[in-house]
Amino acid sequence: MIKWCIGADMGGTTVKIGLLTTAGELVEKWEIPTRKEKEGVQVLPDIAAAILAKLEERGIAKEEVAGVGIGVPGPVGPDGFVPVCVNIGWRNGFYPERILSELLGGMKVKAGNDANVAALGEAWMGGAKGSDNATFITLGTGVGGGVIMGGQIVTGSKGLGGEIGHMVMNMEEPDACNCGNHGCLEQYASATGIVKEAKRVLLRSDAPSVLREKENFSCKDVWDAAKAGDAAAVETVEYCMKVLALAMSHITHLVDPENFVIGGGVSAAGEYLAELVRKYYAEFTHLLKDKPQISLATLGNDAGTYGAAKLILGE
Amino acid sequence: MIKWCIGADMGGTTVKIGLLTTAGELVEKWEIPTRKEKEGVQVLPDIAAAILAKLEERGIAKEEVAGVGIGVPGPVGPDGFVPVCVNIGWRNGFYPERILSELLGGMKVKAGNDANVAALGEAWMGGAKGSDNATFITLGTGVGGGVIMGGQIVTGSKGLGGEIGHMVMNMEEPDACNCGNHGCLEQYASATGIVKEAKRVLLRSDAPSVLREKENFSCKDVWDAAKAGDAAAVETVEYCMKVLALAMSHITHLVDPENFVIGGGVSAAGEYLAELVRKYYAEFTHLLKDKPQISLATLGNDAGTYGAAKLILGE
Repeated sequence: MIKWCIGADMGGTTVKIGLLTTAGELVEKWEIPTRKEKEGVQVLPDIAAAILAKLEERGIAKEEVAGVGIGVPGPVGPDGFVPVCVNIGWRNGFYPERILSELLGGMKVKAGNDANVAALGEAWMGGAKGSDNATFITLGTGVGGGVIMGGQIVTGSKGLGGEIGHMVMNMEEPDACNCGNHGCLEQYASATGIVKEAKRVLLRSDAPSVLREKENFSCKDVWDAAKAGDAAAVETVEYCMKVLALAMSHITHLVDPENFVIGGGVSAAGEYLAELVRKYYAEFTHLLKDKPQISLATLGNDAGTYGAAKLILGE
Repeated sequence: MIKWCIGADMGGTTVKIGLLTTAGELVEKWEIPTRKEKEGVQVLPDIAAAILAKLEERGIAKEEVAGVGIGVPGPVGPDGFVPVCVNIGWRNGFYPERILSELLGGMKVKAGNDANVAALGEAWMGGAKGSDNATFITLGTGVGGGVIMGGQIVTGSKGLGGEIGHMVMNMEEPDACNCGNHGCLEQYASATGIVKEAKRVLLRSDAPSVLREKENFSCKDVWDAAKAGDAAAVETVEYCMKVLALAMSHITHLVDPENFVIGGGVSAAGEYLAELVRKYYAEFTHLLKDKPQISLATLGNDAGTYGAAKLILGE
């Protein structure tokens, strides 16, 4: 009888692996290093070895496991093809599902983009628990997203579904984004974007600010200063969250989710952040009487592990 | 044996009805007036009578018809509930599917929003023929949209799916949109929006323009002048199509369609319009190596009839 599923969330430093029941209980989690050398040739064998050892340790037969889902930090085609994944060292396109399945003696394997997979995890057991129609936004070093519709991840025709960090929000932006474009959401709502915006605000006036006292301040410093009432910090986070809310209103006018879940390191700013987003989101969605729920992610770093495991259960 | 399906595209002036084969051939089409008086109480009975008369005239038995799809010019809930439809006169929420089905002696009836249904028609037999993953944009008096994913219309959790005309594209817009918001796509890419933008361009300078010679110029006048090289008209359509392309790039970063189809009265500007859109769209989608097809609608006023009929075939 199938009782278990396994999720492996692959990052540039470690792979987070979790053993879950098919009902969504995370029974055990552990990490292994990501060996990126030699174009990451060892990454999948290491994951396979870790999983096989864990099953043996617990006396779980392969027949009791639905399979293994993996979250990949890069694009994954609808057929499982991964063209490139710089964070893992993979430079040549291949099908990691097939390789890992062989290494696991034929166990079922399914791959998904990490941000999409984290979205699936939050929709399954986290901030949008039980929702079939949710959008997840990760505010970290960059901005990622995942759209769940009818319980399934929207990958789009070329795997660009949910790439909301690169929606152009400001056609007048002089600075370039990592992607080469100008004015992407990521340039305003990521940790780096918020710090950069704070520096702009500080440059525009001589008004005092606690941020001026530090040579290099962090995104957390900006949020802490804003919560303490620092005018420059407040101006920064109001603007950045207004841009994020605008992007979310675009999502509403297109796929109209029931829930939005905001996660990633920046979301540690908590309810103060969520309230700013709700305020501006309401302004941009006049047509919507009954607003969707906008909440913070609850699974933290485990969202990807949950979502990868859910992937193998058929989304 | 089921050989036929029927589509009824309801507008404020007429209802366009079509008899199609289940393979998508429009065998006959005709129109009946929309009797909006008395809160539109006669509209569904009129449609039922027209359909029953046509079936009798052609000697088609009800058993040979898959059913009747209707396109409604207003929001339609996932369960078929229509809260209000001002263009038809309907002020109180009800289920038109149920009423029409009763009037048709139990035939299957399915309702959808008219812009979404037109999208389905273009994806079935029009500009995106055979595509399961297409976005349709109507540029008319307003701007409507329809998103087809996996062959199905995206209605969203509250029926706002595909309402792309009310994406806020410009937070600095001083004028209000009909919806009460400021800076909606509709304010730049609709026929009225393009005329308004042309007037702004003319006000900004004294440069000569053929548009100054007319007291009231139309959207078609602006496009004709632009094609003839009139500088003010060119500036207008470049800007308006840039805003449209930006909205389309948002759609790509969210659901990543295979095809975009542009229809509605404004699209009569033809390939000149499509080329402008393609140019700016490419600028806003750096991450996308393999661009989607951007084409003009081909079914014209029949798109809604085709799509309504397709609705009953299970999308």
